[in-house]
Formats: sequence, C-alpha cells, structure tokens
Amino acid sequence: MASESGKLWGGRFVGAVDPIMEKFNSSITYDQHLWEVDVQGSKAYSRGLEKAGLLTKAETDQILRGLDKVAEEWAQGTFKLNPNDEDIHTANERRLKELIGETAGKLHTGRSRNDQVVTDLRLWMRQNCSTLSALLWELIRTMVDRAEAERDILFPGYTHLQRAQPIRWSHWILSHAVALTRDSERLLEVQKRINVLPLGSGAIAGNPLGVDRELLRAALNFGAITVNSMDATSERDFVAEFLFWASLCMTHLSRMAEDLILYGTKEFSFVQLSDAYSTGSSLMPQKKNPDSLELIRSKAGRVFGREDKEAVFEVSDTMSAVLQVATGVISTLQVNRENMAQALSPDMLATDLAYYLVRKGMPFRQAHEASGKAVFMAETKGVALNQLSLQELQTISRLFTGDVSQVWDYGHSVEQYAALGGTARSSVDWQIGQVRALLRAQQA
Amino acid sequence: MASESGKLWGGRFVGAVDPIMEKFNSSITYDQHLWEVDVQGSKAYSRGLEKAGLLTKAETDQILRGLDKVAEEWAQGTFKLNPNDEDIHTANERRLKELIGETAGKLHTGRSRNDQVVTDLRLWMRQNCSTLSALLWELIRTMVDRAEAERDILFPGYTHLQRAQPIRWSHWILSHAVALTRDSERLLEVQKRINVLPLGSGAIAGNPLGVDRELLRAALNFGAITVNSMDATSERDFVAEFLFWASLCMTHLSRMAEDLILYGTKEFSFVQLSDAYSTGSSLMPQKKNPDSLELIRSKAGRVFGREDKEAVFEVSDTMSAVLQVATGVISTLQVNRENMAQALSPDMLATDLAYYLVRKGMPFRQAHEASGKAVFMAETKGVALNQLSLQELQTISRLFTGDVSQVWDYGHSVEQYAALGGTARSSVDWQIGQVRALLRAQQA
Amino acid sequence: MASESGKLWGGRFVGAVDPIMEKFNSSITYDQHLWEVDVQGSKAYSRGLEKAGLLTKAETDQILRGLDKVAEEWAQGTFKLNPNDEDIHTANERRLKELIGETAGKLHTGRSRNDQVVTDLRLWMRQNCSTLSALLWELIRTMVDRAEAERDILFPGYTHLQRAQPIRWSHWILSHAVALTRDSERLLEVQKRINVLPLGSGAIAGNPLGVDRELLRAALNFGAITVNSMDATSERDFVAEFLFWASLCMTHLSRMAEDLILYGTKEFSFVQLSDAYSTGSSLMPQKKNPDSLELIRSKAGRVFGREDKEAVFEVSDTMSAVLQVATGVISTLQVNRENMAQALSPDMLATDLAYYLVRKGMPFRQAHEASGKAVFMAETKGVALNQLSLQELQTISRLFTGDVSQVWDYGHSVEQYAALGGTARSSVDWQIGQVRALLRAQQA
Amino acid sequence: MASESGKLWGGRFVGAVDPIMEKFNSSITYDQHLWEVDVQGSKAYSRGLEKAGLLTKAETDQILRGLDKVAEEWAQGTFKLNPNDEDIHTANERRLKELIGETAGKLHTGRSRNDQVVTDLRLWMRQNCSTLSALLWELIRTMVDRAEAERDILFPGYTHLQRAQPIRWSHWILSHAVALTRDSERLLEVQKRINVLPLGSGAIAGNPLGVDRELLRAALNFGAITVNSMDATSERDFVAEFLFWASLCMTHLSRMAEDLILYGTKEFSFVQLSDAYSTGSSLMPQKKNPDSLELIRSKAGRVFGREDKEAVFEVSDTMSAVLQVATGVISTLQVNRENMAQALSPDMLATDLAYYLVRKGMPFRQAHEASGKAVFMAETKGVALNQLSLQELQTISRLFTGDVSQVWDYGHSVEQYAALGGTARSSVDWQIGQVRALLRAQQA
Repeated sequence: MASESGKLWGGRFVGAVDPIMEKFNSSITYDQHLWEVDVQGSKAYSRGLEKAGLLTKAETDQILRGLDKVAEEWAQGTFKLNPNDEDIHTANERRLKELIGETAGKLHTGRSRNDQVVTDLRLWMRQNCSTLSALLWELIRTMVDRAEAERDILFPGYTHLQRAQPIRWSHWILSHAVALTRDSERLLEVQKRINVLPLGSGAIAGNPLGVDRELLRAALNFGAITVNSMDATSERDFVAEFLFWASLCMTHLSRMAEDLILYGTKEFSFVQLSDAYSTGSSLMPQKKNPDSLELIRSKAGRVFGREDKEAVFEVSDTMSAVLQVATGVISTLQVNRENMAQALSPDMLATDLAYYLVRKGMPFRQAHEASGKAVFMAETKGVALNQLSLQELQTISRLFTGDVSQVWDYGHSVEQYAALGGTARSSVDWQIGQVRALLRAQQA
Repeated sequence: MASESGKLWGGRFVGAVDPIMEKFNSSITYDQHLWEVDVQGSKAYSRGLEKAGLLTKAETDQILRGLDKVAEEWAQGTFKLNPNDEDIHTANERRLKELIGETAGKLHTGRSRNDQVVTDLRLWMRQNCSTLSALLWELIRTMVDRAEAERDILFPGYTHLQRAQPIRWSHWILSHAVALTRDSERLLEVQKRINVLPLGSGAIAGNPLGVDRELLRAALNFGAITVNSMDATSERDFVAEFLFWASLCMTHLSRMAEDLILYGTKEFSFVQLSDAYSTGSSLMPQKKNPDSLELIRSKAGRVFGREDKEAVFEVSDTMSAVLQVATGVISTLQVNRENMAQALSPDMLATDLAYYLVRKGMPFRQAHEASGKAVFMAETKGVALNQLSLQELQTISRLFTGDVSQVWDYGHSVEQYAALGGTARSSVDWQIGQVRALLRAQQA
Repeated sequence: MASESGKLWGGRFVGAVDPIMEKFNSSITYDQHLWEVDVQGSKAYSRGLEKAGLLTKAETDQILRGLDKVAEEWAQGTFKLNPNDEDIHTANERRLKELIGETAGKLHTGRSRNDQVVTDLRLWMRQNCSTLSALLWELIRTMVDRAEAERDILFPGYTHLQRAQPIRWSHWILSHAVALTRDSERLLEVQKRINVLPLGSGAIAGNPLGVDRELLRAALNFGAITVNSMDATSERDFVAEFLFWASLCMTHLSRMAEDLILYGTKEFSFVQLSDAYSTGSSLMPQKKNPDSLELIRSKAGRVFGREDKEAVFEVSDTMSAVLQVATGVISTLQVNRENMAQALSPDMLATDLAYYLVRKGMPFRQAHEASGKAVFMAETKGVALNQLSLQELQTISRLFTGDVSQVWDYGHSVEQYAALGGTARSSVDWQIGQVRALLRAQQA
Repeated sequence: MASESGKLWGGRFVGAVDPIMEKFNSSITYDQHLWEVDVQGSKAYSRGLEKAGLLTKAETDQILRGLDKVAEEWAQGTFKLNPNDEDIHTANERRLKELIGETAGKLHTGRSRNDQVVTDLRLWMRQNCSTLSALLWELIRTMVDRAEAERDILFPGYTHLQRAQPIRWSHWILSHAVALTRDSERLLEVQKRINVLPLGSGAIAGNPLGVDRELLRAALNFGAITVNSMDATSERDFVAEFLFWASLCMTHLSRMAEDLILYGTKEFSFVQLSDAYSTGSSLMPQKKNPDSLELIRSKAGRVFGREDKEAVFEVSDTMSAVLQVATGVISTLQVNRENMAQALSPDMLATDLAYYLVRKGMPFRQAHEASGKAVFMAETKGVALNQLSLQELQTISRLFTGDVSQVWDYGHSVEQYAALGGTARSSVDWQIGQVRALLRAQQA
C-alpha cells in the first residue's frame, strides 16, 4: 500500500506509484536551496497556529525547538534525505516528526503545500535579490570609477561596426553603466512585488481556522499580504518578472562583452583581457581566448523562456557568477591608449565638417551633402579627408575658408558635445555624478 | 546616381541600391503610426535650434507652420506617400521641403535619425500606455462590479481541474481581477521609464550645437532626460519591458479565458457566452464556439519573443482589442447558478471533515488520513461522503459524533474562510474594497 | 604558474584564473554522460594515428589498454574526478596519463577539443535516438492495440471544447498515434544527420598529419564524413534539430494529456487514471490529481529555446521519462463507456440533419441554414433536437418526411464516415493497419 | 439578425457580433495569399462531389466556370472584397454565388472550413517551398562558383574572434555553403510532409458522402493522403517544421553576415560591400553601413516562436528577400587579398611549430607546451614568433634544428591540411565537387 511509504495523501490511495513517475515528480534535487526559508516559514506558521488556539504553548515550543534542530542539521551538513522525500517540505516535516513525534502532524493544519511552497520561494528570492543588487552595484561602481580615471582617453565610437565619431573611452563605459542602473532599478521593483506574504491562503479557499495573517506577515517581515487566496497560491508573476529582469540584465552584459571581444581582437587591439579571464586552446599554443566574455554572452540566450522554480535557482546562480566575472574583467582590463588614438581617422570628422558649413549658414541637409562629396573626393583621390586642399574643398562649397583646418582636431571634436549626455569632458563628469547619485539613492 | 532619388545620405553613394534590399529596409508600412508624434518632436526640436541660434525666429515660424500643415494632411487623410519615402521621418521632412523649401533642410541639424526615431517611439508609447491603462481599469472595474453583485453564488473551486473546495463565484472573479491589478501597476512603471527624453543625443557622441535638452524635455513634457547619448540612441529596454508587460497581462487574460471556455462546455454548463462573442461552424449547424475566448487565449503565445518597433504597434493593437473584448465578455456573460450549485458535491468537504477532527484535538496529519479513509469507504460503498452513517465514521475515528452532520453545509463551509484573502463573504467584501482602493490610487 | 595545475594550454599563461570563472567554464557536472563515447572516440583516433605513422604498434596497444582501463573504472563507479578536471575529455586523458605515462600525451596529436567534443556528442546522441525511437514505438504500439480493442466505444468528438460529432473512441486514440508516427519519422531523419563523422577536422583548418578519416568513420560506424572542417567543428544543427524534434513530440503528448485531463474531470467522467499515475493533496483528503498528465503537459514548455549540450542531456532524460509515463498511462487508463454514451446528444447530429436534406437535393448552404433553424427551434422550445415533431420540422423545410427519424442513431451516424481517414469502423481498421505498417517500415 | 450579414452559420444566431471581436477574428488581410490555391482546391472538390453523385455534370461545369471567373478577377486585380468577407474562403464562395447563383451553395457539401483551410495552406506552402529551394540553390551555386574562382587567396581563420590558423578564403565560403546544403536537404523533407492531402476529412469525423479521397489527391497532385481525419484538420506540424527550417537557415545566413560585417570593418578591411547593399547615415556623411548584412542578421531573431498561418506568409516573404539579398551580396563582394595576406602572422603557425616537434618524435602534449613557451618568449622579447633565433628555440627544446625555418611559410601551412574536409587546395577542390554533386542530387 502506498500509504506505507509515508506519502502525505496516504489515506485514500491503494495502487503503487510508477517509479518513473515518482522520480519525474520529485523536486528535491533542486529545492534543497529552500531548507532555511522552509524552516523560517514553518516557525512563523506554528506561532500563528498558537495564537489561533490550535497549538498549545508547549506544543509550539516543541515544534520550534524541533525546527531549530532540523535547521542545525542542514547547516552542519548532517541532514539525511530519504528516498521518499519528494521535496524539501516533505523532508523537513518527516524529520521533524522523527525528532518530536506526533505533534509534528499539527504543523500543517490549515496550510496547503502550495501555500508553503510559494511562501518559501518568496522568502528565498527576496534574500537573493538583495545579494544580486549588491553585486550589481559593485559592478556599476567599478565601471564608474574606471570611467572617472580614464576620462582623457579618446577612441572611435562605432555604429553598425563602422567608425562613426571620436568619443571618450569613459563615454563608452558609462553607456553600459547607465544601462545597468536601469537593471538595478528594476530589480528593486521586482523585489517589492516578491515581498508580499501568501501564507494563510490554504489550497484555494483561504484559511478557515482563524490564523492571523498580519501576525505571519510581521513575523516573516513581509511588506504586505496577498489579497485573494486563489491568486496567491497559483500566481508566479514574480518568477516571470525575475527571469525577465535577468534576461534584460544579461542582454546588457552580453552587449558589453561583445564590444570587449571585438576591442580585444588583434585587428582592433584596444584592450587586453587579464589572463585570469582568458583560456587557451588544447591544439593551438598561441591562442588566448576571451572565454569569460564569451560565456557572459552565451548565457544571455539561456536565461529566458522558462517560468519555473528550477529556473529561478539556476538563473540566480548564473547571474551571481556573471556579475562577479564582469566586475573582475572590468577591473583588470588593460587599455592600449595608443592603439585607440591611432584608430581615429579624419573621415570620422565628416559630421564636424558638415557642422562647419552649418555654422557658416548652410542648411544641414546641404551641408551633409557637401561633406559627403568631400569624403567621396578624398576616397577617389586616395587621400585622407583632412588632406584635401582648400581649393579642392572650395570646388564643393565656397563657404570653405582657411579656418577649416581647425576641424581636424579630435580633442576639439569631442569637446563640442557638451550638451547633457554628450561625450565632452564636462558632460562625462556630469554622467559620473548622475550614476553615483542614483546608486546612493537605490542603496538607501 | 542614388542621390537623385533624394536619399538622405546622397552625397557619397554612386551605385544603385538593390530594390529587394530597399524594400527589405523600408519601415513605412508600419511606422506611419508615428506621424503625429514625429511632427510634435520636430516642432520641439526646431524651437531648440532657435534658442541655440541655429534658426532665426522667421525660419522657426516657417518650419512650425509647415509642420502643422503636414499634420493637417495626415489628419485629413490627404498626405501622399512617395515610393522613395522609406520611413515616416523621411516622408514628413520630404513633404515639409515641398511646402516651405530649403529651410526644411535646417531642421535635422545636430539630430540623428536614431535620435528622432527613439524620441518618436517614446512619445507614441507614452500615449499608448495611457490608453491601455484606461482599458485595463475599465475591465477590472467591470469585474469588481460583477463580483460585488454576485457574491452569493457558490460553485466548485478547482485545482488540477479536479473539484477541490466550495468557493464563491466572486472569489474566482476577484482572483483574476487581482492579477490584473498587478498588470496595471507594472504598466505604470513601464510608462515611467518610457517617459524619458533621448532627443539631443545625436548619433552617438551627443549634440554639439548647444541645444538645450531641458527645453526639449519641457516642450515635450517628458519626466526626465537620458543620461548618456550612446545608451540613449541604442537602448530599447522600454520596448522589451512593454512587450513583457503585454505578455504577462495576456497570460492572465488567457488563463481567465481558459477557465471560461471550460465553464461554458456542455459538461460544466456554469456560464453561457453572449452571442456577440461566439461564432458558429460552416459545417455543423448546432455549434456555437467561444471564439472570443479562444482568440484571447491564442494571442498570448504571440506577444512575446520580439524586440522591435513593428512588434510594438502590433502588440498594442492586440492588447487594445483583447482588453475590450474581455470587458465585453465579462459584462455579458450569463451565469447558471443552479448548475453551479448542483456541481458542489460532499467529497469537496473532505477537508472540512478533517478540520472537524482537528477541532476535536486530532493532529492534522492524522485527521487528513482519517478523512481520506472516509472518502475511500464512501467510494467503495458507492455512496456520497455525507451518506456514511455515524457508525461507519466511528470505525475510522471515535472522535466522530452526531454534530458531524453540520459539516455538510456548503454555505457554512465557505463562511469558515474568513481570514483575509479567503472566500467568506466578509473577506470577499474586503477584497472588493482593496481592489477599488488600488484602482483609485493608480488612477491618481 | 597555471601550467602546474595541468591545464592543457599551460605553456603560455602566467596569471591564475579567477575561480568563479573556472567554475563557470566547467562542464564536467553534465558531460560525464559522455564517458563511454569519449573512450570509443579516442580508441578510434589512436588507430588513425597508428595508420598515419604517428604512433607505433606498441604505443597504440598501450593507449588502447589504458583507455579500456579508464572505461572499466567508469563502469564500476571507481573513477575519481579531480577538481582540475574541467570536462570529461580532460578527465579521461588525465587518468590515461596516470595509468600509462607520457605516451598518453600523443593521443591528442592533430585533434582539437572541438573535434573531440562534437564527435563524442554525435556518438552519444546517435545511441540516444535509438533508445528514444524504441520508447516511442512502444507507446504507439500500446495506443494502436488499445484502439483496436475498443473500436466499438462511441463518444463525443469536440471542437473548441464544444460537442461536435459522435466519433469512435479509437478514432481519438488514433488521431494522437498518427501524430506520433510523424515524430518517429522525424527522429530517424535527425538521427541520419547526427550520424556523420566530424573527427579529423582539427581546430578549423583540418588535419595535417595524414589521418585517414574514412578509417575513423568505419571504426566508429558513422554513415558519412563531414565535408568542411570549419563547419564540422562549429555547427550544432543536429542539436537544434533534436531539440525541435523533442519540442514537437512533447507538444503532441501534451495535447493528448490535456484531452485526458479534461476527460478525467468529474464533469466529463469519461476516463479514470490509474492510481499509479495520480497523486493526492497534502490538504484535501478527497483529491486525486492527474499529476502524470500535468507533468507531461508542463514539460512541453521547457523543451525548447536552448541550443546547448547541457540541454541535450536534460531533454533526453525528460523525453525518456515522458514516453514511458505516457505508455503507462495509456495502458492502465480505465474507460467509462456508459458515461461516454450518455454524453452523446441529438444536437451533435445537426450536421446529419443537414446531410439528410442534401440527399434530398437541397444545396448544402441552405441545408445548413435549415438545420440551424431546427436547432434554434428546439432550444427555444426547450426540447432535444430529435424531439421536434415532423410538422415542426416541415415548417422549416417541406423536404422533411417520416424517414427523418433514421437520423437519430449515433451508430448509424459514425458509420457514414467511411471515406479513408474517417471514423467508420472500416476506416478505423484501415487506420490501424496503416499505423502498424508504418511502424514496421520505420523499425526496419 | 446576424444571418442577414451572410455569415455561414447564420441560422442559429440572434445577437449581433461585437465589431471589435469581428475584426479580431478576421484573417482576410493576410490570407488573400491563398486565393489561387483556394480556387484549385474547390475545383478538385467539386469534381469529387460529382463523382459521388452530389453534383450533376451540369452543376459541376457551372461551378468550375464560376471558379475560373473568380480566379480571373483575382489575377486581374478586379476582385472586390466585401466588409463581411472574413477570410479568403468566404470571399471566394460569396463571389461564386453572385456569379452562378444557388448552385454555389452545393460546393461546401461535406467539407468543413478547417478541411479547406489546411488543404489550401498545404498547396500554397508546397509551391512556396519549391520557390525557396530554387533561391537557396542559386545562393549556394554562387558561393561555390566564387569559392572555385578564389581558391588561392589565404587569410586568417578565426576562433573566438582570435586569429587561429591560416586558411583559404574558399574554405570559409564553403563552410557556409555546406551549412546551407543541410538547409536545402531539410527543406525537401519538410516539403515532403507538406505534400499530403487532408481534404475529405470534414470537421472531425471524416467525410460521410462517399467522396473519393484518392481522386482528390490525384487531382491536386499530392503525394499521399492523411490517415486520420481528426489529426488531419488540426495538426500544424508542417507549419512548425517550416518555421523551424526558416529559423535554422536564417541562423546560418546570420552567421555568415556577422563574419562579413566584421571582415568589412575598417579594422579588418578584408572585404568591401557593394554600394547596392549599403546605406548611409542621415547625420554622418562619411558612413557607409552594411545594412543588408545587418538586416539579414536581425531577421534571424524574428523567424521563430510563432506557429500560425500569418507567420508562414511573413516568414516566407522574409526568406525569399533574404536569400536574394544574400546572393547579391556574395556575388558583388569585393575582396582585398593584400589585406588578407597581411593579416597572417607567425603566431598563427604555433600549431605548426608543435607539429614540427611531433614529427621529430615529441608527444603532442609536450610539443604544445614547448610551442607555447616559444610564443611566450617571443611576446616577452617583443618580437614575432618567427624571429626567435635557433639558439633561443633550443633553450626550449633540443629538437629544434635549422629546418625549423620551413615552418614559417603560410602556403606550406595550408597545404598540410590535405585530409578530406581540410583547407589544402586538393581538399577544397573535393569540397567544391561534393557540394555540386549534392546540389545536382537535390535538384533531381
């Protein structure tokens, strides 16, 4: 009889369960993560039962001491799982019964498994969000510090992988740091919605035994209680939100990694990864592969598309590792500022050449066309854009005069972009200040 | 020469573009949605150029009047697209030039296409979020009103599609309404992040011409400005967030639709869809299919997995239609309260039978086992659970006495669930109050 | 020095590797599945090196014996992993070196890690496809046997969850069995593309040492060799194909599970799951949940969206369990033929009523309209469709005469559908024959 | 009354349908693609009805002539849609009735809408697969021709975006062409499963009127008929398979595009896109963006995740455009062979240096370590690997002698890779032959 195996719904069943089905249904391999919060939740619930008169003071104390003992066994690695422990909740209650006897059977009064699972998951994820927030802030801080220290390095800004305009190296760092501040903002919002207590919802209809949900909320330090018991036990919006958060954050880290992989190629040679974040080839002795960056990039694709508890644990581990590796990569990256400077080329100032004409009164569309003609002329003649003579430029527009030579200064070019958010030194300083202020606000 | 076709980057190119490639690259078929916000954005930008001294007062006025004329043509349906208009931005500027001449060429000074596209998209989506919020609130309000009116109808609550416990029909409605309140909360958060101005970021390095971004922000009524110009022109987090929001909201509507499809089958016969939300079969004359509900359900799978501008328009339309259809369905649905009552069966009170024993002092795990045995006994004898005699029950536990007959009252059963969030009348009233308060707070 | 840790690219690196990064990069936790095929692949490759003159006969024998010893340790569970074993390939070679000394270092000559990984994966998946094919055939066979045995049971066919037309229960079973035959056909095609040898492709440029790839192919019993070395080491089409195959197969099993969940509800009561495939509730003693079916359904959503080696192992395990559970479910399912018969209702014969008129010469569109009017008339009068009097029917069409009474026979109804593929007894027999012939052909 | 609007299920319904719902439910905007196959299918079905005695010869001729007229109107662009035409099937039948009167109402006898939709879709997709196959073959042929013509160009093969080993440019082209041959093989398999006739399956139970499905199959030139009527009308495996095929093919094209984008950067400068496949920037006059390649890449992400009819049309159009653009790009691409040659560097021969030692008897693992030390020594001294003196090399291994100088020849290096599939000239020729043979076989 199945009831002999100690299954919780033992009374009614008479057939044995297909062992493949049993294994299929088991979650103990991954939900062990929840041992600590499961004990916390049960302790709070036993206090709720006491207040409702369903446990005596003595029974409550017995249960609390038993649960502490269970936790101690987990903490010390001495907890022994049985083959029949299909999940962490069954395992803990089974052990409690071994430790304190029949009183253990009172703990689940009015509580359903769904009730318990979702409470545990919220407790675990709440803590995990705090950990990930801290790691994310550490990464952003590292990036901002680096951006501040290297404000004077110029290099090509790219669009469509084509050289576009000269920018500060710090401007590039900050573009990624700013994206990550949105992730940390979103993570706080997700955590806020995680931090709502479902316990006391029973299977579907609610709790019929007068358990005080406000007491449970306070005991477990939740921000609010759920409004509807059916919704409370079945909804997993917070899981989907967390996975979406991870997906978006990974997308940002992935884009940064992609840029760095490119900047680290022989052809670009802008940066060099620390050996601590590289690996070699089993065949080619000269290879030094940016495996850390490739792993960050490859993980992005794997975060989304699942909505289950198992994914939460796996994705949390991935995020934790990725954030730490990214912080390590950024803080040890070596920048080759000469190569960066050499990669700046006069054609990247074609927009500035157009603005030169705009400042002399030509409508932008015409100036864009004129500058485009200059680029084409230089290409045709096989010279750099800044090597066209004044006469040659004047065949395109009479507005060109001797002062056009001032256009060909990269430092001067970036300093023009002084509007908020631009790549001028003053604006980069403003950005650094903005991100730091945001970090302070989020940590508060 | 390609420049003759009026392409914006005309100066440099000399080959003709592959027509398949051109069509492939065109977005005008769907980005026409943006005509109005594109004019708004350009009007604000021309004022920014005026303040920066790049347009005279007269030029600015000329541009503003021209843009108003463009808007008027769109509004009246008289705007004519050219085959060369690859997107709405090109089309509007091309038309402006036809209307006011060369001055139109000054409008794009210091602005990039990315700058303009992302500003337009944010303006459009901000407006669209307001519309969707209103539709969502209307749906929630309809549901809460219905829940209030039908609080006295009981029916089976299901888990795993098996009858679980008696609940109020309103409890079911509210479980879905509460899920939708999270969607409306999230939509406000998404809208907050949409409501940030990117204009003035140029292509990548920023704006070099002294355009005052704070003026632009105020003119377009944005809540803040973006912090980094590279990030500003390339990030589409807000699109991903909106699509995720739609995906989650659709999941909720889909689950509600799935329940209603089931409740509307011949076998359940709890509800009947209005003809206005049903269709028939071209072959089988008796069929009346719940097509509205099936469409809601099928749309859920299509909302996610894309991150592009095109998806925003399509998903917005879908959400708008779905929310209105759902509101219509809910407000016209006919409830068969007798069928609901008849579907309540004594085995659904097995949990109450266990609680009866708990209240007499038996630990819950033993009471659950005892009640399970009673269920098994009734099944074996082929009678309903409430038809077991007292003597029969006493063979299971001596704690059963004559007062066990009180267990078999469905109304009494639901009234036990008075803890907050449960299905008791008082708790359902509390839920109605909570949802209404939330709606008021969100609308403020 | 990193080289001391025994890393394969030891010569060049001087920094220590970040331990988080190392763990992140390790695949040993899941690629242990490959131990056996890794040994097979290495044995074949050492023979290839011998033929190319890069190993002497004695060295080859030494390596082969060493590899057999490695395999023996795995088979007996005595293989000890080192913390530095980042993957199964490193582990096996490390152990080989401990067993036979420096000669082990010759085994990797001209072979790259990618070369080796992809060869192992193809070997493993080829074997796994055979196993899954056998399980799938077993399921289909079980279904066809059941369909044959229960050909005489009629029940409602549904569309849109609305009762549509009477069909045979076997017709429903076969509709799912036929879908699964497409899966088994596809699996053979996937296996054919898996069964291509990449070994001998090196890192990217090929093998420079005269290794005979045809010898390798024959030794490992592959059907063909890959055509281009760059493509061979990087392509994972066969992984994507396998995952897609699993996704589609799971979709089919999921749909069948969804039907059975519904048919097993109290409201339908057509079938009853064996206790071996059901579970109970920790709270509600009367509950018997169709967990096997729900798990099958829930796994469907998890199979897709990944393209990595890790997914292959997990998805293979899932498919194996799901196919066995599905076979168990089908073979133990109890059918309630009386409930099925009672669920047939006269309105399901409305199409037959229309055909009655068609046979009397009325165009189908008019007949459909006429039959629809009869349904409406019956609903309005609150009677069953077959209780309308002849006079009443004649108010709709004069073509109705006394013989209309023959329409109201469910057995007669299904026998009409004798065209191939229909639900008539003869056609169901034909279907059974078709599926069995297909199985025989696929197994050949 | 809804029936007045001409809806097909008119008889029974009395309420008006919500107009939002109606629009929501309409598919006419995209299923117009099916006009031609819908007429074909109806023509075949009317012949089936004639043979079954349900249409007279005169009626059949009338219907056939009417359908030809409908087709003619579509072909000439004179077909007028009504607001009530919810899909192409309704529209065609409505028009047929206008043209030939009540006889049109006989055409749908025994056919269901599902029956008709899925038959039309299979007809359309069968034709479309032929078109896409031809485009794919054209692309592969272009690639192979180019590979043959440019066999003597060497350039760096990359792994992890790091220079790995010298290879032939043709080897790179062929690596992508070979991947595409798998796509064309798969497309033929998909087409084979599309080419199965469902017509004659009715709504669910089959066809009750003696329609000869074999006649229908022959008339519409299908390869087989479906086995089970329930499965036939509901299954969309072939749609999922087609979308998966497109997804995988796009992944291949996307990877090729990604390589070409990189090879076309200023930093790599290996290839130059034709102007016909580039676009410019509205702001930066010098920009020439590889938009064709970026579009190919971006479309990859959009192909998957949908399973509906609408997706089939959109994805088919995308694939058609992408294949043609890719063919154009490949055939007009300009290769800079000097830049390619200059990008080859001695460290890419480190593997060859290890093989040099292997040939002198050193186990590969030691040779790999020794070559790695040489790379490190060269880096430390700041010289190229081939500039280490013999004495310096001998401090690493005594096996180095004067003949080591032969290692530093790129041409010699690639010629070593003569094993089948490698980058040696002979092997590249073999590959070209293999791909051409495959194309011939597939086209047969």
